[in-house]
Amino acid sequence: MQHELLLQHIARHISLTNEEEEQIISLFKSKKLKKKQFLLQEGDVQRQAAFVTTGCLRSYSIDKNGFEHVLQFAPPGWWIGDMRSFIHQQPATLYIDAIDDSEILLVQKTELEQLYTNIPKLERFFRILAENSLATYQHRLIDNLSLSAMERYNNFCQIYPSLIEYLPQKQVASYIGVTPEFLSKMLSQEKAKKS
Amino acid sequence: MQHELLLQHIARHISLTNEEEEQIISLFKSKKLKKKQFLLQEGDVQRQAAFVTTGCLRSYSIDKNGFEHVLQFAPPGWWIGDMRSFIHQQPATLYIDAIDDSEILLVQKTELEQLYTNIPKLERFFRILAENSLATYQHRLIDNLSLSAMERYNNFCQIYPSLIEYLPQKQVASYIGVTPEFLSKMLSQEKAKKS
Repeated sequence: MQHELLLQHIARHISLTNEEEEQIISLFKSKKLKKKQFLLQEGDVQRQAAFVTTGCLRSYSIDKNGFEHVLQFAPPGWWIGDMRSFIHQQPATLYIDAIDDSEILLVQKTELEQLYTNIPKLERFFRILAENSLATYQHRLIDNLSLSAMERYNNFCQIYPSLIEYLPQKQVASYIGVTPEFLSKMLSQEKAKKS
Repeated sequence: MQHELLLQHIARHISLTNEEEEQIISLFKSKKLKKKQFLLQEGDVQRQAAFVTTGCLRSYSIDKNGFEHVLQFAPPGWWIGDMRSFIHQQPATLYIDAIDDSEILLVQKTELEQLYTNIPKLERFFRILAENSLATYQHRLIDNLSLSAMERYNNFCQIYPSLIEYLPQKQVASYIGVTPEFLSKMLSQEKAKKS
């Protein structure tokens, strides 16, 4: 079931034979994370790529004043990672933890490299995946530089429609870059305007 | 010479035969841009991927108050684009123009797709390229959320060491997300601290 989600996800961009599917399944290992459990902490090296199958993970940094800044949420069907740490095998600057009890599939970087050799069309899959993420990050960065908090909140709702009811408001606030108090006040004012 | 830079750039990640190199060269067309000339404007669809060989380009958005927000600079050896527009062939939200007289190589999206079919290892090249960019964007986003303007300025100097003397200060200010006046004052204070 867990691997089924991964295979469906890959099938959106490339076609695999049964043998190739089995080879992939054999290398992606399942792991359970309890709510608040860490997958990665600052200073760790991220040695595995992570694909979320149930629950939800988030990546974030903690600044020198102790404030958390959420980079990404990963509900089922999403990948999550500190890309610089994973690519260059250097210490991470991000934390990744589970917002809820979650299950993920992990593949070692070395085994993923082996998969690229054995199944070259996976290069295509991960190219498309990386380019789509890149497009999202480009626009999030521009949004952060140029949009109001309310506009950033509306964009969040578009990117993560399934999370808006699910997440505690303080997590959403940390993603859009405002305090929980500010977000709460802003949403009340918006509601008042509409009523 | 222009194509030589592109081939050197590709050779950092994959090996091409002479025939493959020729095929690539035949599809990347040279274009000159004068200082301030646009490659892309908001609302256009980006139909070509762009690789800079001389000069410097920048991508930016203009917010509803008329302020520019620089997403990226592209000196020689860099790619530049509105990824969402290019991938999905939808209207761009970014502007791209030349900061200086520049030369670029352009390849049509449809021809790039053809190259992926003819030379599958290009998938690998562009996967690595996209993943590296993704790592850079992840950290820039976190930096924008969590670092001071001086720390963002120092990161800019690390990412673009060749540009720090070359660019007008207002461009750098727009990249790190402060006004030119603020940047100028901040750098004077920093200089005074060090002397």
